[in-house]
Amino acid sequence: MDPLAGLRRAAGERAAAGLRRTLRPRTPDDDGLLDLASNDYLGLARDPRLIEAAVAAAREWGTGSTGSRLVTGSTRLHEALETALAELCGAERALVFSSGYLANLGAVAALGRGGLVVSDAGNHASIVDACRLARGRVVVAPRGDLEAMEKALAGRTEERALLVTDAVFSVDGDLADVAALAELARRYEALLVVDEAHALGVVGEHGRGAVHSIGLFRESHIVRTITLSKSLGSQGGAVLGAPEVIETLIDTGRSFIFDTGLAPACVGAALAAVDILHSQPELPVRTRARASELAAVVRELGLETREPAGAVVPVVLGAPETALAAAATCAEHGVRVGCFRPPSVPEGRSCLRLTARANLSSDDLAVIRHALTAVAEVKVRA
Amino acid sequence: MDPLAGLRRAAGERAAAGLRRTLRPRTPDDDGLLDLASNDYLGLARDPRLIEAAVAAAREWGTGSTGSRLVTGSTRLHEALETALAELCGAERALVFSSGYLANLGAVAALGRGGLVVSDAGNHASIVDACRLARGRVVVAPRGDLEAMEKALAGRTEERALLVTDAVFSVDGDLADVAALAELARRYEALLVVDEAHALGVVGEHGRGAVHSIGLFRESHIVRTITLSKSLGSQGGAVLGAPEVIETLIDTGRSFIFDTGLAPACVGAALAAVDILHSQPELPVRTRARASELAAVVRELGLETREPAGAVVPVVLGAPETALAAAATCAEHGVRVGCFRPPSVPEGRSCLRLTARANLSSDDLAVIRHALTAVAEVKVRA
Ligand SMILES: Cc1ncc(COP(=O)(O)O)c(C=O)c1O
Ligand SMILES: Cc1ncc(COP(=O)(O)O)c(C=O)c1O
Repeated sequence: MDPLAGLRRAAGERAAAGLRRTLRPRTPDDDGLLDLASNDYLGLARDPRLIEAAVAAAREWGTGSTGSRLVTGSTRLHEALETALAELCGAERALVFSSGYLANLGAVAALGRGGLVVSDAGNHASIVDACRLARGRVVVAPRGDLEAMEKALAGRTEERALLVTDAVFSVDGDLADVAALAELARRYEALLVVDEAHALGVVGEHGRGAVHSIGLFRESHIVRTITLSKSLGSQGGAVLGAPEVIETLIDTGRSFIFDTGLAPACVGAALAAVDILHSQPELPVRTRARASELAAVVRELGLETREPAGAVVPVVLGAPETALAAAATCAEHGVRVGCFRPPSVPEGRSCLRLTARANLSSDDLAVIRHALTAVAEVKVRA
Repeated sequence: MDPLAGLRRAAGERAAAGLRRTLRPRTPDDDGLLDLASNDYLGLARDPRLIEAAVAAAREWGTGSTGSRLVTGSTRLHEALETALAELCGAERALVFSSGYLANLGAVAALGRGGLVVSDAGNHASIVDACRLARGRVVVAPRGDLEAMEKALAGRTEERALLVTDAVFSVDGDLADVAALAELARRYEALLVVDEAHALGVVGEHGRGAVHSIGLFRESHIVRTITLSKSLGSQGGAVLGAPEVIETLIDTGRSFIFDTGLAPACVGAALAAVDILHSQPELPVRTRARASELAAVVRELGLETREPAGAVVPVVLGAPETALAAAATCAEHGVRVGCFRPPSVPEGRSCLRLTARANLSSDDLAVIRHALTAVAEVKVRA
């Protein structure tokens, strides 16, 4: 069959299942909508301090890093960001990648190489892909199932083992039991990789993340991955860990070695965001408070949610069509929300994903309550 | 064993094999070295037009795109870049990713999903990883071996088949036989994915790339991937192809759906670079001429190279230690070159990688000749 005909047929099947997606490019004023969908948890992506740092970086260093970090793509600015991230999170060292996705691929694939990789079923897509790239044996444990993870680790025949989890799960918004996972990893001489994408900048004092908030930042068998594209308002990712970990990634991390270094403007903006986390510790506190308020509104309206660990508040609606209709209702009420359907969430768990921001006002919350009230009616009709 | 002890042991083995790597962060003036190592083929990464476009984009849109392209990460600026890239390359549509690495992962994994993927042994690491993520059957054909590729395609049992190649190979710098590959793919009803990373901006009129240069840009079974981080002086990547291809990636491309959209500053810079390719068609011509001159010098000194198709000129030296010593010699003579060792190149093929730039002067070429003369002496001693 003509290959394009094959793609058309598959698209028809996705359409029938309510799984087509459309890009809707926004305007500079966000189409006049209130943003409850982005991952700009601290409201920094338009902060003048980040913008001026990005501008200064582009002027000083140019618009691209011009090569792999191992060739021409490492600048003093990248080095400064690595120092700042390590310091913020209480890590020995940090290594910057061009995205959080590639940081996960690099860390899990290089550190898990040929070994046993035990991964939580709720982990982010980039971790799922990373497990496959490790070319070892992958055991996917049910969400948060410590017993299943222990069983897998106990039955290990490989020399290396790696346990990997999101800190704050990206759609459900709840926190993994990092302390228990760290203990499990320690007991079985495994590395633990914790993806702090949705925890950095939100969880813990100064937003130092989940591992730091429970005092485990000195444990050398814990590796953290982060992204610069959410609370830090920029783009890029990083891995935090012991020197042995970082050196392994420099020597063997394919998504590090074979990728162009992060653009200077993004490095500059992230560095400014780290400074702000030091000087304005109230921002993560405010984000968490707004998230709790959002969750309270959702519950009050009889909709299913969870107590948020960070900024993410899901509203579970079930069928993909219901979630789509609810997102449209929110837009009619002036609020942009995320709408998640399979394969981003399990079948039957299509949902809205609301995200709190440090700079949501009480007026904003009133608008949101209005929109969610209408969503509750959509849900009843569905 | 303690997992860090395992990493230390492996690092010791790499050290013994001459395969340790170090980051050497550069200063804003490139440590005073002449750059013959970057992928900034048109010399645009510090062009004031790109810088001002990046600055304007950051000021108008902020420092991050704030979410997945499917949620809040698509802006009118991303849309404008997609239109401009499609127009430059004569493609029906384009889809921007946050890196070329992720563009390859998305295109090959989504389009090859569960099928037969035939990949050239010389392909870039991101394509190798992408093949694995397609979760089908992968056949790796020897470099440029059309017969082996045909045999694999003829023996196909899967519904889908995909053939994938670099256009200009990233270290050897030579051109794939894209016309023959396109015919092979057509005959066996396969998609052909061509990675134009090192061809865009360098090969063909206005740098429209290898597929365009042989008039195949209207073939709907050809998919092109590009990067914005080399000749376009920015960061990011894109996939170019028929509407069916782009819609498949929007619906199912994991590295598109689950990744934050490209930062506005990078989008703005790349857009300015595309404008420059329209208005200054002499730039790609100059880059190719400089590359030929470099190759001539290398050959004249009795060193092994290839006639370059684009900007990349390899100097094959053999052992990793010889390549490292040669790179150090170049630096002593004021020239920064790339040094490639396994796993970036096959065993015994460690090399220097020289890259031409449109803005190399004849003074620069004299300095380079000097450095390469010293390299020829290193090679003799090795
Ligand atoms: C948990 C998690 N990890 C990693 C990533 C990837 O980060 P980035 O978008 O910076 O590539 C994301 C989201 O994009 C995420 O939600
Ligand atoms: C052939 C090829 N494809 C893809 C890439 C990845 O592009 P990027 O660095 O934009 O991720 C590279 C180099 O980095 C490359 O050489």
